Amino acid sequence: MATELLTNIAQLTTVDAQGTVLSDAAVLIDGEAIAWIGAAADAPNADIVTDLGGRAVLPGWVDSHSHLIFAGDRSEEFVARMSGQAYAAGGIAVTTGATREASEQQLRQMVAERRAAALATGTTWMETKTGYGLSLTEEVRHAKLGRDLVDSLTFLGAHLVPAGSDADEYTDLVAGPMLEAVADQVDFVDIFCERGAFDEAQTRRVLDAAKARGLATKVHGNQLGEGPGVALAVEYGSHSVDHVNFLNEHDVEALAGSWTAWDAASRSGTPGVVATCLPACDLSTRMPFAPGAELLERGVRIALASNCNPGTSYTSNMNFCVATAVLQMNLSLEQAIEAATFGGALALGVQDRIGSLEVGKRADLHVLDAPSAAHLAYRPGMALTHAVYRAGRREL
Amino acid sequence: MATELLTNIAQLTTVDAQGTVLSDAAVLIDGEAIAWIGAAADAPNADIVTDLGGRAVLPGWVDSHSHLIFAGDRSEEFVARMSGQAYAAGGIAVTTGATREASEQQLRQMVAERRAAALATGTTWMETKTGYGLSLTEEVRHAKLGRDLVDSLTFLGAHLVPAGSDADEYTDLVAGPMLEAVADQVDFVDIFCERGAFDEAQTRRVLDAAKARGLATKVHGNQLGEGPGVALAVEYGSHSVDHVNFLNEHDVEALAGSWTAWDAASRSGTPGVVATCLPACDLSTRMPFAPGAELLERGVRIALASNCNPGTSYTSNMNFCVATAVLQMNLSLEQAIEAATFGGALALGVQDRIGSLEVGKRADLHVLDAPSAAHLAYRPGMALTHAVYRAGRREL
Repeated sequence: MATELLTNIAQLTTVDAQGTVLSDAAVLIDGEAIAWIGAAADAPNADIVTDLGGRAVLPGWVDSHSHLIFAGDRSEEFVARMSGQAYAAGGIAVTTGATREASEQQLRQMVAERRAAALATGTTWMETKTGYGLSLTEEVRHAKLGRDLVDSLTFLGAHLVPAGSDADEYTDLVAGPMLEAVADQVDFVDIFCERGAFDEAQTRRVLDAAKARGLATKVHGNQLGEGPGVALAVEYGSHSVDHVNFLNEHDVEALAGSWTAWDAASRSGTPGVVATCLPACDLSTRMPFAPGAELLERGVRIALASNCNPGTSYTSNMNFCVATAVLQMNLSLEQAIEAATFGGALALGVQDRIGSLEVGKRADLHVLDAPSAAHLAYRPGMALTHAVYRAGRREL
Repeated sequence: MATELLTNIAQLTTVDAQGTVLSDAAVLIDGEAIAWIGAAADAPNADIVTDLGGRAVLPGWVDSHSHLIFAGDRSEEFVARMSGQAYAAGGIAVTTGATREASEQQLRQMVAERRAAALATGTTWMETKTGYGLSLTEEVRHAKLGRDLVDSLTFLGAHLVPAGSDADEYTDLVAGPMLEAVADQVDFVDIFCERGAFDEAQTRRVLDAAKARGLATKVHGNQLGEGPGVALAVEYGSHSVDHVNFLNEHDVEALAGSWTAWDAASRSGTPGVVATCLPACDLSTRMPFAPGAELLERGVRIALASNCNPGTSYTSNMNFCVATAVLQMNLSLEQAIEAATFGGALALGVQDRIGSLEVGKRADLHVLDAPSAAHLAYRPGMALTHAVYRAGRREL
């Protein structure tokens, strides 16, 4: 493989353990990996030299929470919500119906287009979930399809109890035959633990089933009100609990406690439970923002993700999510960038391979059309993605 | 001139007096103007037929408030503000210095690039201001340059009292020799009436001087706290008062009162004072949003504009401003679109020529890569501008 030197980088935000930010930097890519990082003046020779024209570079976004496998849209429900109707999880059934009608080829093309749109705004690693199938056949179809098209895949059979089904019977289906059928395809098992979706006992059955198979877990929790989601995620050692809009002091303490070992070992060993904040979803449902800044102050690691889905957050633009986090969640730029890169990698258990710019890691780089990363929040809404490298290859 | 029929429009939002929205529509363009609007099935013949593929069409954005004529950036000041420092109007001086250093050619290119970036997100009519000159020579240079590059031009010599100058002496310079030198170039005279900028007496001197020359006026007011800006704008019959974050009941009553005649004549005759809301600026300064929805309820016409400038709102993306207005200012989609099109035209006194899709008006159309305008708020951050027609010509 040829080596490529990216040079004339005005500002390189590494997101390494020390939070190193270099000026006048260069990065050497060897094949799929980062081989060297340092001052442009000290750069080694390379087969190809690419002058980035004084632009800023940061790690590609790691979007650790999305729901890309769907057909149809729900713009009418959105308009109704904007007119004052509250968000109800039941809207998911609308998408389930439309998705069931879509052919394999149609669905595959739609997911691929959504993945490409996310890449175009800097997302180099993307998780997505099943969960608009809600039947054994459909969930399996979605899992197989997702496996090829995204980087991390989550089984969310327990997204909603299908209309006309008994909640406990459906939970048994999810925790039993469905989980068995998709287990080889997926990286995580997730459950929507919320009033109107699945209760604590049902959540435990799904998490127990995942544990019994050695599968890592996630929990959708505390989105619409306080609930047992966070406590269960901590108890079961989930990689993340996502949404976290409504937290009480016990929740925050439990999350903070999960990070003690990781802190002691300075970013190594077993991470705690990442609190995944979804600012675009909070905007689109007019909910209070998840308390990301407060969680960071308390020692909880957070991720920022898009939650791209047709009901509550139909955007995959992580530049927009990061800008919103800085402008409205009061995160510093550094905190927001770390949450949207290394934080996402932690939430997906891939922090040793991606999520920061360090020698040996995969060469996933986001080149901004700006001299510093601050422009992401300073110029919200502007097209700031100049180029994206994924696994060492320039994708745009 | 050839005629062009735009057809297969899934949703056409006209923003006419009745708020007409058509499905399966078509628009005939003849030269620079709209010649016909109706059902696609009834469309007349045309030299060119363009199939818009089931997309939504709305009027091009009318951005009635921006400050494009500047050099340099103020990302460091932005980062400091995000770390907790309050916004201080004094940052304007940083831009003034950088702009003074820029050559005619450099400045011209920068402004043209910013105008092109705004067009790329659907802005077909754009106002900009002088105000980073703050000396006679520089203000004249900026006015001449702006005249060629934007659609409406405002003289804002009274943007800030230059460091080391006496406020009253500078006001005399603005209201006297400066105004005289730029009067032939500009459409409006504007003044920043705010604590830290110009007080009521100084504002009156500038507005009186404008009136004496028959020039239309605007006021920057009530951005950082309550103040006399709104009352003065109403008293002087200004086209708009911009920012309007802090309003008391007297201000709202005065604004509402200015619209009585226009209401009685159903959108004709002399409009009142438009309250221009600048949501991207409110985000970027972490200020409370201007109360746009409340103003509309009280019968005040509002405009939505970008306030694109390097200090407090470095974005020209009106799609972003409209999404923010719906998601966070609680405007309905229809209200936000009207404010960003016809509302802007009212604020600039060009409502008879642009700002809505009606036969005889200039053919300024924004074609979305979506089947309905709701997607602007439903999919925030996504690239939704498919094509833009300006004066009948496809620009992208």
